[in-house]
Amino acid sequence: MIDLKRRLAAEFTGTAVLLAAVIGSGIMGENLSGGNIAIALLANAIATGAILFVLITMFGPLSGAHFNPVVTLVFALRNEISSRDAAAYGAAQILGALTGVVVAHLMFAEPVFQLSTHVRTGWSQWFSEAVATFGLLVTILLTLKTRADGVPVAVALYITSAYWFTASTSFANPAVTFARAFSDSFAGIRLMDAPLFIVFQVTGAFAALVFCTWLMRTRLSETRDLK
Amino acid sequence: MIDLKRRLAAEFTGTAVLLAAVIGSGIMGENLSGGNIAIALLANAIATGAILFVLITMFGPLSGAHFNPVVTLVFALRNEISSRDAAAYGAAQILGALTGVVVAHLMFAEPVFQLSTHVRTGWSQWFSEAVATFGLLVTILLTLKTRADGVPVAVALYITSAYWFTASTSFANPAVTFARAFSDSFAGIRLMDAPLFIVFQVTGAFAALVFCTWLMRTRLSETRDLK
Amino acid sequence: MIDLKRRLAAEFTGTAVLLAAVIGSGIMGENLSGGNIAIALLANAIATGAILFVLITMFGPLSGAHFNPVVTLVFALRNEISSRDAAAYGAAQILGALTGVVVAHLMFAEPVFQLSTHVRTGWSQWFSEAVATFGLLVTILLTLKTRADGVPVAVALYITSAYWFTASTSFANPAVTFARAFSDSFAGIRLMDAPLFIVFQVTGAFAALVFCTWLMRTRLSETRDLK
Amino acid sequence: MIDLKRRLAAEFTGTAVLLAAVIGSGIMGENLSGGNIAIALLANAIATGAILFVLITMFGPLSGAHFNPVVTLVFALRNEISSRDAAAYGAAQILGALTGVVVAHLMFAEPVFQLSTHVRTGWSQWFSEAVATFGLLVTILLTLKTRADGVPVAVALYITSAYWFTASTSFANPAVTFARAFSDSFAGIRLMDAPLFIVFQVTGAFAALVFCTWLMRTRLSETRDLK
Repeated sequence: MIDLKRRLAAEFTGTAVLLAAVIGSGIMGENLSGGNIAIALLANAIATGAILFVLITMFGPLSGAHFNPVVTLVFALRNEISSRDAAAYGAAQILGALTGVVVAHLMFAEPVFQLSTHVRTGWSQWFSEAVATFGLLVTILLTLKTRADGVPVAVALYITSAYWFTASTSFANPAVTFARAFSDSFAGIRLMDAPLFIVFQVTGAFAALVFCTWLMRTRLSETRDLK
Repeated sequence: MIDLKRRLAAEFTGTAVLLAAVIGSGIMGENLSGGNIAIALLANAIATGAILFVLITMFGPLSGAHFNPVVTLVFALRNEISSRDAAAYGAAQILGALTGVVVAHLMFAEPVFQLSTHVRTGWSQWFSEAVATFGLLVTILLTLKTRADGVPVAVALYITSAYWFTASTSFANPAVTFARAFSDSFAGIRLMDAPLFIVFQVTGAFAALVFCTWLMRTRLSETRDLK
Repeated sequence: MIDLKRRLAAEFTGTAVLLAAVIGSGIMGENLSGGNIAIALLANAIATGAILFVLITMFGPLSGAHFNPVVTLVFALRNEISSRDAAAYGAAQILGALTGVVVAHLMFAEPVFQLSTHVRTGWSQWFSEAVATFGLLVTILLTLKTRADGVPVAVALYITSAYWFTASTSFANPAVTFARAFSDSFAGIRLMDAPLFIVFQVTGAFAALVFCTWLMRTRLSETRDLK
Repeated sequence: MIDLKRRLAAEFTGTAVLLAAVIGSGIMGENLSGGNIAIALLANAIATGAILFVLITMFGPLSGAHFNPVVTLVFALRNEISSRDAAAYGAAQILGALTGVVVAHLMFAEPVFQLSTHVRTGWSQWFSEAVATFGLLVTILLTLKTRADGVPVAVALYITSAYWFTASTSFANPAVTFARAFSDSFAGIRLMDAPLFIVFQVTGAFAALVFCTWLMRTRLSETRDLK
């Protein structure tokens, strides 16, 4: 394991690039699509999935490439990261996410500081976030066990798909949710809508942890078959 | 091999997520595309292919990741799964598929129970389903033999392509067909049209089994070349 | 190596599915896109690339997965297939291609026998075909040498890209060209325009063979570095 | 290592095909999309990413597949290529890029020599180029260290994503920038705007080199964990 300083740099940079990609491709899509939102979302989903593969591939061996406080939380609950390191990861992710939003705004010559007016509330949105985060964590936990080198592709394709099959376009990440509140663009969310998104994300993540723990609790002789 | 209970949980969950993705991305596409159905189908195909890769990668080592009664049927005919387990797989797949439809409806704030009014009938549709299922089973059986770790990608890309090259958009799965009858959305099918879809799916699957059995019946010395 | 009969079955089936995908997704795209040809071509390119990956992955270990007379020709010139087998391959590819067109027409309830009225002629088209086929053969010959298990992805992505960057949408295959003359749909070509397409495809393939032979003719000690 | 002449041929050919794909798919997109620029850019991004995977896969083992003077510059600064070879690489890349533009124009029956009138200037564009090139070099340097056989996919997906998330559509390559000045099409750039693009590309590349050098400077025992 490399030293914490470098792992935090990896988490910070990865989350920043992720947000720059989410926000930036959202702005580009909105600008070019002339109101055809389906194309904007398709480009947004492809750009996000593609950069996730890149970021997880290159930062995975350094920091684990969480880029997501609920992922870090789940690994902390599984004792795969200490509480102290997990807290530092969370801070790096949030700072990175905010930095990524600023970078996206600077690239597109938009005001650096914005507050989103995009309303995202109601049971359908909250349930979507719980489902989206459940699926993301199941993807990570099971793929890590059954085919670890497939994690970057699996996460990338999961998110590409979930942008389309959840009503909330699958934020599934508290740091991303918080940071997207500061961009009044395609990918934004009202700051007051963020807390409940995060509550349901955490709920979905817990459900995934319980489900996967049960699913993978097999006799020792069986475990070998999974490798 | 892990115990049956967990394998059924994998089949149930995988089929549920598959249906949530098929129905959910169909609804999202319809909502956003403003009548431009080509974009809706493109997003639907990409979302379905992407989630198939994820599901087969992570559940494959647990249950085989059939998610499809005709796949289970073919493996039963090849004596790779017992009749008792195959029947249980089929039940888990159908329950999972229905659950996935309900989850998609809840995410998009639609009525939980619906009956599709989408007419899908006639020789062109039936022949499409036979071709689609033939191709799917050939993909599975041959790729399993020639490059087993390529099955998740191969199935995902086959379905992405077949959404576009068959007139029926390639259901190719009786559990999926049955469940899609209960969603009056982009991906739906009238309940009364489902049985003939399923008949032709089974026909296509049998043809694939016969074809692949012949194609792979080679002398022992040749078999080694295939590995 | 498996027996010739089964290799020919693989070439026939693979080329048939390839054509069904090219023609079928072209018809679907035309039907759904409401005149927005860019979306139709995007779907056509994705469907074709995806099915190529599947077909080469599963039939590669059986017949080499040529599906293309100029590919077979180049392997014959390199003495990797006998003239007799090469001729049989060519016949299987042409019959398979025509069968694929018929299957696509049946799936979409179109007249089985059609003659394309799609004019594709002139230097820009011919030069495009020479470039497209040069690129395809360079992709095959070099990837086979430097990373053989990457051939299915490389060919699939090459064609997906070449659909867009050549003015002819990259036929790059005499069997495909001939068969597409019998479909009066998005992907068709007038029969009288086919011969010159084929002449320039063969020219591009020869240029690729000469280029790659020179490029890979290195001292013995260097060859090892390429593996 | 193979001889310089063949390595230069690989750099020349790869950069030429890259430019033919960038310019060609841009023209095709513009022609077909009827003013819907979002679809044109989506096709342009997919075509460029796809061909990058192919080119890096097949030419990587021959020349390293730089196709980009700042990539060559960074490897020269890391003493992985001599100054003399690096200068020759740069010349081959620029000649290849110009050749690719000519090939694209010939394929689409456009005037061979053109001067772009596409204005691309201002801080938002320049900052975008610095970010784009920083990200590209970080992708290359880190992926080479953590998962070298993933470089072709990582670079391809990075560029696909960066086409959408940077305001400049991510040129990130001085040879590409210079050559695109000679095409008055979708992907063009005014010749007078090219120098500042290149200045910021070099700046971004230096920043990436500094960042990655620090990030990967770990104790010997840690380095092993990264492999």
